[in-house]
Amino acid sequence: MGVIADIETPALILDRAKLEANIARMRDRLAGLGVGLRPHVKTAKSIDVVRPVLVGQPGGITVSSVDEAVYFSQHGVNDILYAVGVAPSKLPRLIELSRQGTDISVVLDNSDAANACNRAACAAGVQLPFLIELDVDGHRSGITPESPALLNLAAAVQDMPGVRLKGVMTHAGESYNCRSEPELVAMAEQERSGAVLAAERLRRAGYECPIVSIGSTPTALFANRFDGITEVRAGVYMFMDLVMAGLGVCDISDIALGVVVSVIGHQPEKNLVIADGGWMALSRDRGTANQPIDQGYGLVCDVLGIPFTSDLIVIATNQEHAIIARRDKGPVDPLRFPVGTLLRILPNHACATGAQHGAYHVVNGANPNVEHVWARIAGSSSVHQVTHTHTI
Amino acid sequence: MGVIADIETPALILDRAKLEANIARMRDRLAGLGVGLRPHVKTAKSIDVVRPVLVGQPGGITVSSVDEAVYFSQHGVNDILYAVGVAPSKLPRLIELSRQGTDISVVLDNSDAANACNRAACAAGVQLPFLIELDVDGHRSGITPESPALLNLAAAVQDMPGVRLKGVMTHAGESYNCRSEPELVAMAEQERSGAVLAAERLRRAGYECPIVSIGSTPTALFANRFDGITEVRAGVYMFMDLVMAGLGVCDISDIALGVVVSVIGHQPEKNLVIADGGWMALSRDRGTANQPIDQGYGLVCDVLGIPFTSDLIVIATNQEHAIIARRDKGPVDPLRFPVGTLLRILPNHACATGAQHGAYHVVNGANPNVEHVWARIAGSSSVHQVTHTHTI
Repeated sequence: MGVIADIETPALILDRAKLEANIARMRDRLAGLGVGLRPHVKTAKSIDVVRPVLVGQPGGITVSSVDEAVYFSQHGVNDILYAVGVAPSKLPRLIELSRQGTDISVVLDNSDAANACNRAACAAGVQLPFLIELDVDGHRSGITPESPALLNLAAAVQDMPGVRLKGVMTHAGESYNCRSEPELVAMAEQERSGAVLAAERLRRAGYECPIVSIGSTPTALFANRFDGITEVRAGVYMFMDLVMAGLGVCDISDIALGVVVSVIGHQPEKNLVIADGGWMALSRDRGTANQPIDQGYGLVCDVLGIPFTSDLIVIATNQEHAIIARRDKGPVDPLRFPVGTLLRILPNHACATGAQHGAYHVVNGANPNVEHVWARIAGSSSVHQVTHTHTI
Repeated sequence: MGVIADIETPALILDRAKLEANIARMRDRLAGLGVGLRPHVKTAKSIDVVRPVLVGQPGGITVSSVDEAVYFSQHGVNDILYAVGVAPSKLPRLIELSRQGTDISVVLDNSDAANACNRAACAAGVQLPFLIELDVDGHRSGITPESPALLNLAAAVQDMPGVRLKGVMTHAGESYNCRSEPELVAMAEQERSGAVLAAERLRRAGYECPIVSIGSTPTALFANRFDGITEVRAGVYMFMDLVMAGLGVCDISDIALGVVVSVIGHQPEKNLVIADGGWMALSRDRGTANQPIDQGYGLVCDVLGIPFTSDLIVIATNQEHAIIARRDKGPVDPLRFPVGTLLRILPNHACATGAQHGAYHVVNGANPNVEHVWARIAGSSSVHQVTHTHTI
């Protein structure tokens, strides 16, 4: 596999020691509170990353795309929750997975989607289990736990033989906007209590609700209890990123994912270093822009992932260029970063940066060796439409 | 290939009629001004898109990644300019292409990069032609045309047998920040005159400078003359996008690229429509944020690409969700956009949105048929590190 110094840049790098520590932290936290994990694999998109996550867990996963569902089922995972409100056009491949024996569940928050699932499932001679998506924080989709629409939807699906109500799920996405530990703890309880309330309302009305699923990395790590919850979903915690560090969910030193780039030039009179990691490699994500510390397009570290005391960030990106400067815009000595110098950029958002790459170069702390190159499925949700390999 | 209505969403869609009109517009413009085109393929990343662009042109292309160089050389293009300041780690694959018979040129703006190229080329027994990158607008990299560093670099490479000075190149990236046609015309002349000045200084000093290469979509389309220029580079013009429309370079109706998404739900009390095109499908690019008209994460059109009179934009994205609202935040009737409704989102930045997908679904105007599915190479610059196909 060679050594880090021989990697063609830009390249995605993953520190196995930090990955394993992040995996252990979540596992121990949830085990201590007596709840199982259904990892969200939208961040990792790689069986090599997810396999150790599943050790000691029930074995199910959460996906955000049909490509993820297909890929992980091909790699032996047979309990998959597709956790994005289902679109009719995705039903053919989801139902094909179901016919092939994968336990696929979908989520929805309206009867139109339920009707579309029912029609497609009946036509295929299968039954599609689903969870009702709840809105506990006004973040995005879902039915509020106390809404009449919850029981109306449960009633509407009773005469739909192609679908089966299996429970409720929610994602407290607003936890990303919390600014203190008390806020995170409160958001976690809001997520838990909302899901439990919806489940109790369904049960009191005579509907079965075996699954009560919640989760986000911040709420999973800051919840004090999971009473009434049957599974927790989280994914970004495996890698962590600058947004999580800005939230106080992790330290910068816990971030396992980075992008290795090469210095290609300088603009000394502007105090700039130019490197070959543009938005194609880092993504355009600016998730720290609204946090107390804006990390630009990423925090610049040495190749081993240690930030510089001069505090360098990527202040701008073009397609294949990173414009690097000191946060204080102070002078940067070009001789300190000669052309060819390798740097590691820590990402704002691990999901977005990972999605720009086709493989992880796996390293272990300060060891210069690249232990493995782990494939990950590409970003596109429609890449399944064609096959094309371009090694060489 | 089926019809648009059967596409699994989200999916990248390309209108062939608009593509061909955009290609013809640039071809005619440059032909009228007597200069050849070296298309930049970083936007298209597909031989099917680029083949018609090369008709009637010298045949060379511009790339921004080694993967593009490898892919296009495999598809018969044998004159390739890799137009990003070269990093030493990229030299092995670039030199391998040279050894295989591809005429590959690199760009650089410093003697350290020249030394790295010289060492690698000499070791491989090849000579690597290069262009000196010029900075005509303070945009990014390069040497200013009037700088002593220009002649110093030309002198420094004279005793480097592994490299050969072939000319100069520049890209007026600041043209993206122009706000009027006169500004665009002036920026085009600034780009042209700067490159010509640098070429003349080199020639007066006794150096050969056969290539004088400039270009960006805005300057290529607004330049009044190309005297002294040997080739123009441009790429985004093939598709156009909302940033180009905001600059006045094209009309919204000229944008050939879009992302087809499905409505998956609503939040009526918030006047929101939820669709399945998140930043994985649209990219995080916010290139119109600083323009007079901020298009959010994209302009929402019907499936044929016609904007709605109610003026809908994507106001927010999550990984796989688009949050759609009226620009004026006014009410949106859910019955107008039932679950399953297909919409076409026009992108802020064609390069960034295209990079999120593995294929183009090619349509032609209002024809409901998908004529072709054209493969494009994926976003990652390091995807060559592994092969993985995931059809099904």
